[in-house]
Amino acid sequence: MFDILPIKGGLDNVKGFFSGGVSVGLKSGGKKDAAFIRSDELCDVGAVFTANKFQAAPIKHFKRYGEIFQTNFILINSKNANAMTGAAGIDDINKIFSQLPSFLKAENPVMSSTGVIGCRLDTDKIIKAFELFDFNGKNSDAAAQAIMTTDRFKKEIAVRVDIEGKGSFHAAAICKGAGMINPSLATMLCFIATDASVPKELITTLLKDAAEESFNAISVDGDTSTNDTVMLISSGKSGVWDKEAFMEALKFLTKYLALEIVRDGEGSKKVVAFEVKNALTLDEAKKAAKALSNSLLVKTALFGEDPNWGRIASTIGASGIACDEDKLSIYYDDILAYSPEKKQFDSASEAACAKVMKKESFKILCDLGMGDKSYTAYGCDLGHEYVNINADYRS
Amino acid sequence: MFDILPIKGGLDNVKGFFSGGVSVGLKSGGKKDAAFIRSDELCDVGAVFTANKFQAAPIKHFKRYGEIFQTNFILINSKNANAMTGAAGIDDINKIFSQLPSFLKAENPVMSSTGVIGCRLDTDKIIKAFELFDFNGKNSDAAAQAIMTTDRFKKEIAVRVDIEGKGSFHAAAICKGAGMINPSLATMLCFIATDASVPKELITTLLKDAAEESFNAISVDGDTSTNDTVMLISSGKSGVWDKEAFMEALKFLTKYLALEIVRDGEGSKKVVAFEVKNALTLDEAKKAAKALSNSLLVKTALFGEDPNWGRIASTIGASGIACDEDKLSIYYDDILAYSPEKKQFDSASEAACAKVMKKESFKILCDLGMGDKSYTAYGCDLGHEYVNINADYRS
Repeated sequence: MFDILPIKGGLDNVKGFFSGGVSVGLKSGGKKDAAFIRSDELCDVGAVFTANKFQAAPIKHFKRYGEIFQTNFILINSKNANAMTGAAGIDDINKIFSQLPSFLKAENPVMSSTGVIGCRLDTDKIIKAFELFDFNGKNSDAAAQAIMTTDRFKKEIAVRVDIEGKGSFHAAAICKGAGMINPSLATMLCFIATDASVPKELITTLLKDAAEESFNAISVDGDTSTNDTVMLISSGKSGVWDKEAFMEALKFLTKYLALEIVRDGEGSKKVVAFEVKNALTLDEAKKAAKALSNSLLVKTALFGEDPNWGRIASTIGASGIACDEDKLSIYYDDILAYSPEKKQFDSASEAACAKVMKKESFKILCDLGMGDKSYTAYGCDLGHEYVNINADYRS
Repeated sequence: MFDILPIKGGLDNVKGFFSGGVSVGLKSGGKKDAAFIRSDELCDVGAVFTANKFQAAPIKHFKRYGEIFQTNFILINSKNANAMTGAAGIDDINKIFSQLPSFLKAENPVMSSTGVIGCRLDTDKIIKAFELFDFNGKNSDAAAQAIMTTDRFKKEIAVRVDIEGKGSFHAAAICKGAGMINPSLATMLCFIATDASVPKELITTLLKDAAEESFNAISVDGDTSTNDTVMLISSGKSGVWDKEAFMEALKFLTKYLALEIVRDGEGSKKVVAFEVKNALTLDEAKKAAKALSNSLLVKTALFGEDPNWGRIASTIGASGIACDEDKLSIYYDDILAYSPEKKQFDSASEAACAKVMKKESFKILCDLGMGDKSYTAYGCDLGHEYVNINADYRS
């Protein structure tokens, strides 16, 4: 038996970790743009990275340490992705880390970046952060702010997990990413710290499983930015380990943050769950659900609050999965919009569906009636703000 | 030796064909919404249809005639797609055709529809068209207007092909479709008429080949609307046949119309060719080129006229093809933006690329340096107008 209890604040709750964020002038207007997370002892670390073939320099740098290693220092910057920068991009990271204060006793320091692709880092500015950071501070809030790019709000969460007869551990995370991750390729970064005693050989596996049902449900596999990173770092300071409880906590954190990313969709106002039920295979359920959450026409219909179920049907039909118009049903929350017996909207159910669409959050359910596999993907609407934000992102 | 000469007007140039368009009140404001194309003798006909699993009623109806058949009457309506309407949708078509005037001696009449999905046709209104059509008229212009939906301009083209020592034939087409065909699933319809003596067993094959390099280059395979149709109808009245000349003419017509569709991108202002060069395989070149033409972030960068080559690189990296940042080069027209030797923009080339992006039409060239296969896809920018048009399409 265990309880997962959401608690206030972020990484500050986790034993052994310090964090903070400062402004070094990468962003304009004095906004925070450099963050660190460090531990007073060496920690096991695992990560899940983008499937993009052009992985950014910080990812290549991380991978140089091999599959399983320990670290006590994570540096993060926003505004510049350090991607497509070749060997020089890795040299820049090494140069930055060569200036880390010696009292930190940094071992295998890792970096993570987000922002514009194809520009060298301003290493001098980033090194300046080492004079500004409060290395013994617990400023998770500042770290969460410093990693934001187009995010409208910071993303941070913490839980305490009480396990009957074993004691408690903590897990917390900060995250950045806004909305229409795919196909827009906006970068998402997530850093999870825990004092649970996670066996080092399990770290990456458990993280992958959690990401599959959370961050991957808001993105099409393989269609990701150059920098996407989910990292898990474990101090083990609680001395407590319970695989089931830890996995539940990890799923809770990652699912919560994934939905926060959707909710923060660039310029979006709605979070919609696209549940595809009774598909022939799990892969087909995923394929159709993600096609819905990524369709431009579906997204604009959400923005227009138009219960145009024809676009839902057409997107499913175009997704390449097995389906049959004489077995399909489509619901907006619990309102039936289409079924083989009721192919046309009557005005009452159209009005009821339109009312559902006015909500900030609702579900579009497609029952394929083909098999028994289901998957839910999450998406948001696309409106004018999205165009404004992305037409001239670099300036 | 042969010459392909563009000539004025549309279907009216082709021997044996009549066409026209009228308003029957499907669209508001007295706009034309019903069209016909007919021939005074039976014609061979071939078609390429959408890969969507939910094919609309008119497509199912067409297929009932079998692989090879002859017809002398095509009816087209806009505003209602007659899709997801089940058996009733096909009954409606049969009911409409049962009212065709007997003097037409219609055999195997076929229908094509575009518009909102999931509404039964108003058969009475459409039957009314049979009183309004000038069946002996040559009004290709009116037919081209009647098939429009969100199109800003009608799409029509005709050519005469002179073949040394053989004589001449004509080919012409009308077409509808606006812009971001994929992933927006806006329907495209195209009707091509010719008086060349096309062998009936070649009609569909030749049409497929031509569509692959034209309409399919503006859409991702399989990701198409419920109604997409390209139809070729041949009267043979010229008595002339030359496969090479005909194929050239067919490619010219379809390529021209595909680019017209891109140019008419819903709310778009630019037509951009995405050429992916030196890929390992043709499939990989296609995959990367289409990923570029469909990327939301690339489309919004086109709108913002921002030479953000990082989004180009990231989209290629995410497309799943074999690529290497130390072999890739990216050009805007002939201006180099990125190469392994020149990873960063200098201000002169950035300004030059920004200038290219101000043009109404330009090329983004990605040389992968991996093999020797190339493909060009076509796309347009995405701006506020797209959102306006699609947020509330049905009203």
